[in-house]
Amino acid sequence: MFVKAFAPASIGNVICGFDVLGMAVKAPGDLVEVDFNDSSDILIRGISGDQGKLPRETMKNTAGVAVSALAKHLGDERGIDITVHKQMPLGSGLGSSAASAVGAVVAANELLGNKLSKADLMPFVVEAERIACGAGHADNVAPSLLGGITLIRSYDPLDVIQLPSPDNVFVALVHPDVELMTKDARNVLPTELPISKSVEQMGHIAAFVHAVHTNDHQLLGKSLVDVLAEPYRAPLIPHFEQVKKSALYTGALAFGISGSGPSMFALVTGKVQAEQVGEIMVKTLERAEVDCQLYVSKVNDKGAEIVD
Amino acid sequence: MFVKAFAPASIGNVICGFDVLGMAVKAPGDLVEVDFNDSSDILIRGISGDQGKLPRETMKNTAGVAVSALAKHLGDERGIDITVHKQMPLGSGLGSSAASAVGAVVAANELLGNKLSKADLMPFVVEAERIACGAGHADNVAPSLLGGITLIRSYDPLDVIQLPSPDNVFVALVHPDVELMTKDARNVLPTELPISKSVEQMGHIAAFVHAVHTNDHQLLGKSLVDVLAEPYRAPLIPHFEQVKKSALYTGALAFGISGSGPSMFALVTGKVQAEQVGEIMVKTLERAEVDCQLYVSKVNDKGAEIVD
Repeated sequence: MFVKAFAPASIGNVICGFDVLGMAVKAPGDLVEVDFNDSSDILIRGISGDQGKLPRETMKNTAGVAVSALAKHLGDERGIDITVHKQMPLGSGLGSSAASAVGAVVAANELLGNKLSKADLMPFVVEAERIACGAGHADNVAPSLLGGITLIRSYDPLDVIQLPSPDNVFVALVHPDVELMTKDARNVLPTELPISKSVEQMGHIAAFVHAVHTNDHQLLGKSLVDVLAEPYRAPLIPHFEQVKKSALYTGALAFGISGSGPSMFALVTGKVQAEQVGEIMVKTLERAEVDCQLYVSKVNDKGAEIVD
Repeated sequence: MFVKAFAPASIGNVICGFDVLGMAVKAPGDLVEVDFNDSSDILIRGISGDQGKLPRETMKNTAGVAVSALAKHLGDERGIDITVHKQMPLGSGLGSSAASAVGAVVAANELLGNKLSKADLMPFVVEAERIACGAGHADNVAPSLLGGITLIRSYDPLDVIQLPSPDNVFVALVHPDVELMTKDARNVLPTELPISKSVEQMGHIAAFVHAVHTNDHQLLGKSLVDVLAEPYRAPLIPHFEQVKKSALYTGALAFGISGSGPSMFALVTGKVQAEQVGEIMVKTLERAEVDCQLYVSKVNDKGAEIVD
């Protein structure tokens, strides 16, 4: 009864929507396998691709927490083995912990008789994020689970809205080989900000939502601005300004930090153009002697899915 | 060659979009007449309905400033007489100064040969607001001029976006007979706010834009929330909480302060229901011995217009 699920990486904030917007990509992503075991315990059976860094203890592991919360909700006491194949870097700003939780809970839901819809699985992965990140952020779990561009209107009660994906927009995502923990990237942010900055950012996020509904790429570019987090986080990311400049100069609609970084991404009209922008981003980093990985894909409108 | 224009009142902020959203109503609104005079001066020839409160000096009057800026832009040195018929209360949160400026500039543009589009007239009315309010806010002038629901994405450069109006949504707008100056309503606001409040408000404004695009009245209601200004301004408005409670109880989708107040408004699905909600709002105020005026109308999608 072995079940395997793929859960994609995701771009938290999507530049203009600090802590409320998220966007799924097609690659990278984690694979998670689940199967019944002979005990009544939920166990992390193995993790590959994490260089031994992730906790194996069920309730300290994002996948373990998510599956435990689901099983408890369903009142199912059967033991489950979870095997996580990490296929993306940790601490990367790509929603790595979210992807493992999402993959695990989607696979486990199938294993346990497919009783809940994907949207119903949200609370379990938010709980997993709360354990893994110390805060129940949903801006990575929502897109990884549901796909597309997601908006968290409210956390209490949790209200997730799926926004339309603009046509022919591709993502060039680059991960520089440096680790930046979410907690550290949060600590550089001020706790208060001038009301004028909030007003400015509201104008941009509202325009962004209008742009995805009207498929207006020019407005998309103009509205993808971040005055809240980027000014504080960019200095933590190697060569951010140079990579940004090179991407925009090569025709990117917009450029920003993926989640809390250090990954960076550009949105580009057209696939070939996105590949060109991605190459320039890589070259700019390599010239500065920073190794990196590039992923070019469309927005992933499916989200997590069961795979053979 | 006498020309007359109507410019509608407008609801600044639209609850969830402090300083960036605005919405025009069908009533009330100002009428402004313009005609050439024999001098080379732009003159405020008369103002009715203001109980003598508004300045008659051209460059201190919002209508005078707007027409002067337009004439200067066009390089037209002919003298113009402006007569303003105020048909709404001053200091009301209904965009009174904006309506006079908009009516004047729309009429003057017609008088001077209709050389500019309505959108092109924006800078002149923003300039007029700068003079009248001490700040170049555009959240009232944009809807009064262009109609519908408007979003100011950015002030520098000025970028105004027209959002779709949801079907079958009516506005019940009540003005209690107390005066509240915009400057006073601004002074109660904090200059800084916790980043968490900004995040919360971004979720709401983004959901609001999605709701008007998808005509989702339920989401409209949920997203019309203001955590930035309402908590500080509501105490300045007589019986705000009681009127809000009565409106929501009677079926309003949402309720809030119009602009900086003291006017309040409810958005309601259906005309008859909006009239019922409006009556309850009036009764609640009257029971507290506050006189008020009620206006029930659809969103005004036309904005300012030339009238016979």
